[in-house]
Amino acid sequence: MATKLGLTVLDKGSLSAARELEDFPLKLFPEWRLPLSIAVGLTAFFFFYLFIRDVIYAYVEEKTEISYRIMVSLANKVFPIVALIMLSLCYLPGAIAVFFQLYRGTKYRRFPNWLDCWMLCRKQMGLVALGYAFLHAIYTFIIPIRYAFRHKFISEVVDEIKNNNITPFYFDNTKAWGADSFLSLGILGFFLFILLGLTSLPSVGGSLSWREFSFIQSKLGHLTLFICTAHGYIYGWNKFLLPSNYKWYTPPGYMLCLIVPSVVLVLKLLLLLPCVDRTLTRIQQGWERSQPKEEMVEIKATNL
Amino acid sequence: MATKLGLTVLDKGSLSAARELEDFPLKLFPEWRLPLSIAVGLTAFFFFYLFIRDVIYAYVEEKTEISYRIMVSLANKVFPIVALIMLSLCYLPGAIAVFFQLYRGTKYRRFPNWLDCWMLCRKQMGLVALGYAFLHAIYTFIIPIRYAFRHKFISEVVDEIKNNNITPFYFDNTKAWGADSFLSLGILGFFLFILLGLTSLPSVGGSLSWREFSFIQSKLGHLTLFICTAHGYIYGWNKFLLPSNYKWYTPPGYMLCLIVPSVVLVLKLLLLLPCVDRTLTRIQQGWERSQPKEEMVEIKATNL
Amino acid sequence: MATKLGLTVLDKGSLSAARELEDFPLKLFPEWRLPLSIAVGLTAFFFFYLFIRDVIYAYVEEKTEISYRIMVSLANKVFPIVALIMLSLCYLPGAIAVFFQLYRGTKYRRFPNWLDCWMLCRKQMGLVALGYAFLHAIYTFIIPIRYAFRHKFISEVVDEIKNNNITPFYFDNTKAWGADSFLSLGILGFFLFILLGLTSLPSVGGSLSWREFSFIQSKLGHLTLFICTAHGYIYGWNKFLLPSNYKWYTPPGYMLCLIVPSVVLVLKLLLLLPCVDRTLTRIQQGWERSQPKEEMVEIKATNL
Repeated sequence: MATKLGLTVLDKGSLSAARELEDFPLKLFPEWRLPLSIAVGLTAFFFFYLFIRDVIYAYVEEKTEISYRIMVSLANKVFPIVALIMLSLCYLPGAIAVFFQLYRGTKYRRFPNWLDCWMLCRKQMGLVALGYAFLHAIYTFIIPIRYAFRHKFISEVVDEIKNNNITPFYFDNTKAWGADSFLSLGILGFFLFILLGLTSLPSVGGSLSWREFSFIQSKLGHLTLFICTAHGYIYGWNKFLLPSNYKWYTPPGYMLCLIVPSVVLVLKLLLLLPCVDRTLTRIQQGWERSQPKEEMVEIKATNL
Repeated sequence: MATKLGLTVLDKGSLSAARELEDFPLKLFPEWRLPLSIAVGLTAFFFFYLFIRDVIYAYVEEKTEISYRIMVSLANKVFPIVALIMLSLCYLPGAIAVFFQLYRGTKYRRFPNWLDCWMLCRKQMGLVALGYAFLHAIYTFIIPIRYAFRHKFISEVVDEIKNNNITPFYFDNTKAWGADSFLSLGILGFFLFILLGLTSLPSVGGSLSWREFSFIQSKLGHLTLFICTAHGYIYGWNKFLLPSNYKWYTPPGYMLCLIVPSVVLVLKLLLLLPCVDRTLTRIQQGWERSQPKEEMVEIKATNL
Repeated sequence: MATKLGLTVLDKGSLSAARELEDFPLKLFPEWRLPLSIAVGLTAFFFFYLFIRDVIYAYVEEKTEISYRIMVSLANKVFPIVALIMLSLCYLPGAIAVFFQLYRGTKYRRFPNWLDCWMLCRKQMGLVALGYAFLHAIYTFIIPIRYAFRHKFISEVVDEIKNNNITPFYFDNTKAWGADSFLSLGILGFFLFILLGLTSLPSVGGSLSWREFSFIQSKLGHLTLFICTAHGYIYGWNKFLLPSNYKWYTPPGYMLCLIVPSVVLVLKLLLLLPCVDRTLTRIQQGWERSQPKEEMVEIKATNL
């Protein structure tokens, strides 16, 4: 009797264990899997892309071994790139959806499934992007402690003293302006991004009215995206036409990461044009471009 | 019929849109408007004040063009100033209220309206101050990456080598003590400030008992204010009497921002004196300085 | 009558005040007192230990006065040490509990009281550790702004120029690798640690399923502990056998702080061995090493 009981318990255990093992990947964080897989994919792609452009290139062309850069420099290039792309991917589906509505002239028809899935995981996508931005910030803070930075700095000074005899040596005002506005844009963008993240906390978001929440997520979100994109543009402000940037005819990473955000911002700008805006408001208040039959069908479909 | 319906919908739409536009500034974040307007006002004032003292002054008197400082240096002076003032403004009304009670000798009479409004938006004020403190922290972390910082550093080294021949050159222990305690006071203050902010999260605050919450917000809050004020005092520790600081006979910004916190701390200190404290405890336990008639009136007023 | 009432009120007041004062230390944050007292104890111990090893030693042996290090350098050594030890103390009781189960061959018997108390305050312990880690991070960020750092840097450059004439001077690739991986391990550990802290927020934790929560707290937690311990090992990677490190025959602080984490990780590794794991799974599914009588006794005990 005891053995039987023991056996049953045992079987049940192992069976449930087996079932658990099978369900494991399916049950854990279902809504996080798409954003995380996108993040992993982008990270891997840009890591290898930049690894080839920086480390391999330097090794092949200049015979210099700079593999130590993998740990910090490369990471600090990959993280902001992925963060910016994923942040813009949060706001792309909204724009696409609006254009669907404009094209169909009604808001009573369903969006295609892929768009639905996409719009459902915007929050998770934004939080992953925030994580990457956070890593980017910390990697930036510790730059001056790095051995490589201090070494470069010292040899810079040594060169300065060896070659240049007038002191104080030339101070480039434009450079100072560029560097400082680059930094402060980054800081402001990061600050707004963190605000966005805080409002996505269940308890904070719950204490906001619907209009306040949508105001923050839409207005503040697009402002954040704009500032971060400007941050990226200033980073490469005078390097866009530099031929030495196109190693092996490949564009540098920050150019690739600026494509999607620019597209999103241009679309958003189009939607703010008065004529488009008027039509849109009417559509979103229920007005339709005169096809009641389709609507009927649609309503039936939704009822079924 | 359809057109009519369309029209009605249309009208309703535009009307509601119009109403929305009118209500917009009234409905959005009502309790945040006073703190935010105070913050914007202080920021604008101190920005122009320091802009004139630093940039304009340098341009007029020393003929040097340092406008690039607007982006980081000026911002990193304005943010901590506003943060400290707003933090102290969170604790000033409490002190004022207590003095009202002491003066009237009862706790059964209403405070004037302006004091009520003020006390109601203390939390928002503190969170705005925390945002400014956060920006101050990040602006401080990226100082060593700035072009201007590195330029100044290099010329410092070059001068050192040109003029000074004994190495290692003089290490000022007092300076090291001052700089390090200045930094660590700032860090501790920032850390406590973030703790305060965390306890103001709805979910965290909800999990605390009333006494724990009041303990954190009052004791920890005043400690934070004290540390941050000390941080400010150490910043200007040996510069208070330097005449070169009073450009065009104006005091530097950090002096202005130390006035309110000092007042708040002195008031708090007065309230901790045993004699004052005893009376206060009795009053807050319902004891009154013998004017039942007024109280009756007051109670009637409250009942009406 | 009025006086009598006043007196009663008064007495009640003072009595209640007295009672409050007595209860104060007992009521306030009961579950935080053990972690906080451990933290204070460890901080005090390591502070004096390092104070003697660094400042006193330098003063006695090398006749150099470096007391200014107390503010930042010492703090930035003490904080990470305490943080790492307390983080590992969060995961030690879990391992001990499992070994209790393995040894007794059943999960139906109570753990000793000290283990219960310990396991109940793991969350608070982890949050205190997170606070220390946060302070460690900020103290690290502001290192380059310190007067002492810049002074050391400048004299480094001056020496470089005085003694060394080939430029660019030697770049140590191994050193660069070590320093960079040390930094990025620290950053990743800090990032994961903050994720752990976020999931311990009531509102966030409440939105997770039980399995998700346990997954994060156990898997992610041990990963964090592993990364932070590796961070510590890399810090002292080539200094373990350096005799100059053992001032007055005492080991440096980072060695002491690596003991507990290593023990925890080794225990965890033992539990992941297939044979141990199999028995453990069976036990936690209710199987017992054949002592039903004891169980009966135990169940009775629990029922009473």
